[in-house]
Amino acid sequence: MFTLTQFKIGNDIVKLDLPENSHVKSLYEIINNDYLSLKRWLPWVDEIHSIEDERKFIEMARKDTALNKTIVSTILINGKAVGIIDLHNINRKNMRAEIGYWISRDIQGHGIVTESVKRFIEIVFKELNLNKLTIIAESENSKSRAVAERLNFEYEATLKEHLIYNNEFKDYIVYSKFSNR
Amino acid sequence: MFTLTQFKIGNDIVKLDLPENSHVKSLYEIINNDYLSLKRWLPWVDEIHSIEDERKFIEMARKDTALNKTIVSTILINGKAVGIIDLHNINRKNMRAEIGYWISRDIQGHGIVTESVKRFIEIVFKELNLNKLTIIAESENSKSRAVAERLNFEYEATLKEHLIYNNEFKDYIVYSKFSNR
Amino acid sequence: MFTLTQFKIGNDIVKLDLPENSHVKSLYEIINNDYLSLKRWLPWVDEIHSIEDERKFIEMARKDTALNKTIVSTILINGKAVGIIDLHNINRKNMRAEIGYWISRDIQGHGIVTESVKRFIEIVFKELNLNKLTIIAESENSKSRAVAERLNFEYEATLKEHLIYNNEFKDYIVYSKFSNR
Amino acid sequence: MFTLTQFKIGNDIVKLDLPENSHVKSLYEIINNDYLSLKRWLPWVDEIHSIEDERKFIEMARKDTALNKTIVSTILINGKAVGIIDLHNINRKNMRAEIGYWISRDIQGHGIVTESVKRFIEIVFKELNLNKLTIIAESENSKSRAVAERLNFEYEATLKEHLIYNNEFKDYIVYSKFSNR
Amino acid sequence: MFTLTQFKIGNDIVKLDLPENSHVKSLYEIINNDYLSLKRWLPWVDEIHSIEDERKFIEMARKDTALNKTIVSTILINGKAVGIIDLHNINRKNMRAEIGYWISRDIQGHGIVTESVKRFIEIVFKELNLNKLTIIAESENSKSRAVAERLNFEYEATLKEHLIYNNEFKDYIVYSKFSNR
Amino acid sequence: MFTLTQFKIGNDIVKLDLPENSHVKSLYEIINNDYLSLKRWLPWVDEIHSIEDERKFIEMARKDTALNKTIVSTILINGKAVGIIDLHNINRKNMRAEIGYWISRDIQGHGIVTESVKRFIEIVFKELNLNKLTIIAESENSKSRAVAERLNFEYEATLKEHLIYNNEFKDYIVYSKFSNR
Repeated sequence: MFTLTQFKIGNDIVKLDLPENSHVKSLYEIINNDYLSLKRWLPWVDEIHSIEDERKFIEMARKDTALNKTIVSTILINGKAVGIIDLHNINRKNMRAEIGYWISRDIQGHGIVTESVKRFIEIVFKELNLNKLTIIAESENSKSRAVAERLNFEYEATLKEHLIYNNEFKDYIVYSKFSNR
Repeated sequence: MFTLTQFKIGNDIVKLDLPENSHVKSLYEIINNDYLSLKRWLPWVDEIHSIEDERKFIEMARKDTALNKTIVSTILINGKAVGIIDLHNINRKNMRAEIGYWISRDIQGHGIVTESVKRFIEIVFKELNLNKLTIIAESENSKSRAVAERLNFEYEATLKEHLIYNNEFKDYIVYSKFSNR
Repeated sequence: MFTLTQFKIGNDIVKLDLPENSHVKSLYEIINNDYLSLKRWLPWVDEIHSIEDERKFIEMARKDTALNKTIVSTILINGKAVGIIDLHNINRKNMRAEIGYWISRDIQGHGIVTESVKRFIEIVFKELNLNKLTIIAESENSKSRAVAERLNFEYEATLKEHLIYNNEFKDYIVYSKFSNR
Repeated sequence: MFTLTQFKIGNDIVKLDLPENSHVKSLYEIINNDYLSLKRWLPWVDEIHSIEDERKFIEMARKDTALNKTIVSTILINGKAVGIIDLHNINRKNMRAEIGYWISRDIQGHGIVTESVKRFIEIVFKELNLNKLTIIAESENSKSRAVAERLNFEYEATLKEHLIYNNEFKDYIVYSKFSNR
Repeated sequence: MFTLTQFKIGNDIVKLDLPENSHVKSLYEIINNDYLSLKRWLPWVDEIHSIEDERKFIEMARKDTALNKTIVSTILINGKAVGIIDLHNINRKNMRAEIGYWISRDIQGHGIVTESVKRFIEIVFKELNLNKLTIIAESENSKSRAVAERLNFEYEATLKEHLIYNNEFKDYIVYSKFSNR
Repeated sequence: MFTLTQFKIGNDIVKLDLPENSHVKSLYEIINNDYLSLKRWLPWVDEIHSIEDERKFIEMARKDTALNKTIVSTILINGKAVGIIDLHNINRKNMRAEIGYWISRDIQGHGIVTESVKRFIEIVFKELNLNKLTIIAESENSKSRAVAERLNFEYEATLKEHLIYNNEFKDYIVYSKFSNR
């Protein structure tokens, strides 16, 4: 019901909405369908075992957004929930935060994430008066890194052996963007 | 940042937004300026003694809206917060809820509340799948009763001696509207 | 152990007591035996699935009574728990509250509820300094309405389509009684 | 409103009631008047600095009694709150508990505490199915020890240097009574 | 990781450590092996049904020690957790507390408990500025009573029928030791 | 009372202890004396306005250490509390954590921090089975950077404009050390 922004890509209407119960079913189906590809990059996927878990996540996302701890928004295409963009580790005092995102695999490749994150960033830079936004991606996650690069985030650092996946240490790449550049 | 709906009245842009910190200052000033007229009809006005109290109210309104206990939205005119519409006593099982509203006195008389509540009602009837909406107004509150009547709410009941104001018992008038009529 | 009031009807001793663990077994058996007739009028009946649920209800009733949120009392006949009277939606500021009651079916028809509610009302009118007491009954609940009428509560309003039962909307009848009449 | 037991001493009606807000004022006045004598034996007296503190104590006593942690009852004489009897350290599994009591100084000497505790003990022995009740008194507290002895509690033990008062160690005397003797 | 004290008995290194997760497995095995003898004297043994229960106990022991409610320490011999010593019912104001202890049966008889409790007592008498320490043992628990007596605790009292075991009432013996004697 | 490790530097005995109430006074005096130099690098210093604030910090540090959220230890020299070392952002799953430290200014320059952190690191690498430890220092904090370098931590990244101090953006330098190198 509550909308952050809304725009068109081709003939499709894309909305970034406050998460709500009516998004749960669609998001849970995507997590189920894209399970293997999502869990490669998103550790929380292994904690969603049922539609009830997803319902609880949406409730928590609404609550945390209400309390200004995070800003979570569902990506909807023509009314159907297809992904999430969020702002977390919000540090108002030092004017920085981190951005995360994921979208259904069958919709990838049409620029929806890039355009959605672009508009999301414009809003949060301005509304929260931030100086620096960070995107952190695993070094092997080429799609997520491509989004950061298309949005003109700059490479800032490599955090070595920062994550364990399948008993192997993986590196994180840190990208950042400043409001005044 | 999160918008429920948006429309124009003459040259003015009216938005119904999820309440946020940036609305606190403007709403608190209105409560201060309209203190006497507001407190005649809205008992909670006597609990707002400082801008900090209003900030806490907005935080609670966001949290309760996130938890689906209530739906609170700020009325903004050209970006300035001027009033509140809310849905409370939401009873999903029995498909009914109550509506409340108030607006800055210097903006009254231009149909803004009536049009805002009209659009708010359309959204919540549909999105929450409600059957019955109720507006409860004190019998002497002619402005609030006029809004209910202009919106084609029907008189349903008089609740006698339901409120004490200035050591006198006052009656409540209950108006209701059904989704299918 | 803690008694609100005690009186005789014929040879039977009727007590209104603070609910306690020793009442749980008897009340749960009545809810089980009268399941169909109780659930027609009392929606909470569908939430009592085990004696443990009833034990939790009694604990909560004691706690809410301790915190002055409600006043719940068990009706005991010759030491056996047979029903409940409660005062809820207590509004001290506006000096009003609502009354609810139910009793085992095999004891109905001897005036026990009417006399118990009568004495309960006298106590709460005086001890809580109330002006108005309300009894709300479904329009088809003739027994509950008869209790209200025998106690000289006056008809105040009909709340249309206020409850859904078996996929049908039902009306509520509001009865009220004032302390000074 | 909720009464544990009620009896007459001479022409006076003594009631043991669930504590309630209406007792706060009278109990607080007694604590104020008898401050020096009460604080000699009752360490909690030093934590009651205002009528608000006493109101919170009564609320907590009601809540703890509701949760079966303690059983607190106000002693009322002709409707006026004059003291407290309580059962604490209730150990249902091992069937034992401790008793405490205090009363306004100007009412002492008429057997009110002794008779009240006697009836209180009969109720809790039976209703809670206890085997052993304990009264613990400071060795120099002759009045409290006299109550225990008049009630036929037996001397069980001396706990040496168990309490510090005015920088001196004091002993506790433990009295006990068994249900079957 | 955090050590209260450390000493040698013969060739064995004995440590009293803040409980931690790495102690859980060893302590749980002892509780399982010594089940019958432990549960005769330690009622809590019946609440440890799984290694998870023991893990929760250790977590709670750490938390309560952090909050100064109790002081719990694991007894380790050559790095292996073999028992527990704790200080509970700590009353800083009246400068007293109680001591409890248990150790794996196959290690009993070498003076480890006696020496560990001796050093534990020295630390807590000094660090917590206590006047009186109490050991409470069931009258039939000859091993626990022997520890108290070897440590020069004096007999203080017999608390009759203070515990129910196997449907029989058992007495407690209270031993005490003062810091200045 | 609980000690993590203990060693000598020259004639001085250095202990790393679980924080406790007896450290509060000394730590608070250091924070007061070194206020200007500490607050340049440690933002939390501005939240310690009284000895009570420091007491609450120590209580929270004990509790968080008990819950394995952090590991905080006080540095004591000959029994006097002079600083703090802590492990935070502990990520057991990915086997990494961050280290922080500060010490009284008048004791700096004798290698106490370097030796203390060295021993602290050896313990936590082993006991928590970590792969990577990180030290994050402001780019202008030459003393803190010197500690990291003396301990053979390697430069990993510069986080640009990560902190605001006196209305200027400051960079963070990330140093890291791996267990197997």
